[in-house]
Amino acid sequence: MDTPETQLGPQPEIVLVRPQMGENIGAAARAMLNFGLERMRIIAPRDGWPNPSAVAMASGAGRVLDAAGVYDTLADGIGDCDYVYATTARSRDLAKPVLSPERAMEEARAMRLQGKKVAVLFGPERTGLENDEIARANALISVPVNPEFASLNLAQCVLLTAYEYRRQSHETAHHVMEWASSEPASAIEVEKLAEHYEQRLDEAGYFFPETKAEVMKITQRNMWSRLNLSRLDVQMFHGILRQLLRNKD
Amino acid sequence: MDTPETQLGPQPEIVLVRPQMGENIGAAARAMLNFGLERMRIIAPRDGWPNPSAVAMASGAGRVLDAAGVYDTLADGIGDCDYVYATTARSRDLAKPVLSPERAMEEARAMRLQGKKVAVLFGPERTGLENDEIARANALISVPVNPEFASLNLAQCVLLTAYEYRRQSHETAHHVMEWASSEPASAIEVEKLAEHYEQRLDEAGYFFPETKAEVMKITQRNMWSRLNLSRLDVQMFHGILRQLLRNKD
Repeated sequence: MDTPETQLGPQPEIVLVRPQMGENIGAAARAMLNFGLERMRIIAPRDGWPNPSAVAMASGAGRVLDAAGVYDTLADGIGDCDYVYATTARSRDLAKPVLSPERAMEEARAMRLQGKKVAVLFGPERTGLENDEIARANALISVPVNPEFASLNLAQCVLLTAYEYRRQSHETAHHVMEWASSEPASAIEVEKLAEHYEQRLDEAGYFFPETKAEVMKITQRNMWSRLNLSRLDVQMFHGILRQLLRNKD
Repeated sequence: MDTPETQLGPQPEIVLVRPQMGENIGAAARAMLNFGLERMRIIAPRDGWPNPSAVAMASGAGRVLDAAGVYDTLADGIGDCDYVYATTARSRDLAKPVLSPERAMEEARAMRLQGKKVAVLFGPERTGLENDEIARANALISVPVNPEFASLNLAQCVLLTAYEYRRQSHETAHHVMEWASSEPASAIEVEKLAEHYEQRLDEAGYFFPETKAEVMKITQRNMWSRLNLSRLDVQMFHGILRQLLRNKD
């Protein structure tokens, strides 16, 4: 099967533990696929499987549900995994490392690249994972939410995790600033533009009084070179000047 | 009022442009508050304001809605902002920098720490921002979603942005953006400059032929907002225009 593994590299298993509403399973599938993750596992879904509400909500992400593995117990569902993260809202007294999603997905990515199988567990709506489920994890992931208002739902929690995994996979891309469509103007083009304005403004009596003319010209040159104009910007400014003066004489 | 500004430091303005469903406005408020953001602005909400569906959905995040500013036009809603980001799903041919949420929020954070007002625009459900709205932004934010399945809803897009802002607030080292010697112009100052040129150029017959006039105007708006003009630059451009037209009549 042609999964995004080919584009994105190896993926973690997104494991929904005892999910309740089918809609939330479908929404989680959508959240995953937004960031190219397709590997879902479902442990003991409350309303059985398959679930028409999940399918309806997933819509374009239905293939994630079609390919999902469904298991009766968590032990079965993660038996083949080398490293397991558990997401949790509350801080727990379980003597395990607690990582940010960023740090966890950075690790997860590195482990997947070494061929290890990695799972991330998400608990049921409202109640979250039980302690005996968390006990099966190697480390915890805690999203740094506002302690006074923590209301992430299941799909949002999956979304942030998938986003962070994808972000780690695109290390090189995320600092890149692209300029859509237009090339930067060269220094000589900016120079000619500055001259064009200087001449016409001189003729129009802009540089006045005489004693300040030199400083005013320097200030204006300065501005043109500081603006990081594109080639199209330069053309536009030439055009503006020509049009403004067209009907003058 | 004791806002999270005290805990989190200064925040960006989250601007919902022409939002449709009240539920989505409420969900956006929840998404914001999860990461401690409380400053919402709403431009021309389809169903008017206040909106009971928004309040019902926001539940614990109702105070974000209570404090939200509501405006008739985008120009009014961002007039006091120094730097404006527009979130967009599609790549646009508008010659503006396109940033990842991470990079954009890093910049936004640095600007807020310097006392600049920063806005992030989110378009209406499905259609997104119009070109003339995007033309008012200094830069674009594009979430790196799977090109084969991009289905982020409004609240999810707000969630990822708020998450990234919060993440940047927890880092000690910030890359500080330098501003050239003069104060940056506010959005309203750039808006007035763009209008000044647009009116005079319209009178001079610049926007020709008629069929292309709208696109030409958007391109020009776009340029003005992209140039990161200082207050002095704005004054200079006004002066240039006035002087060129002075002897005309």
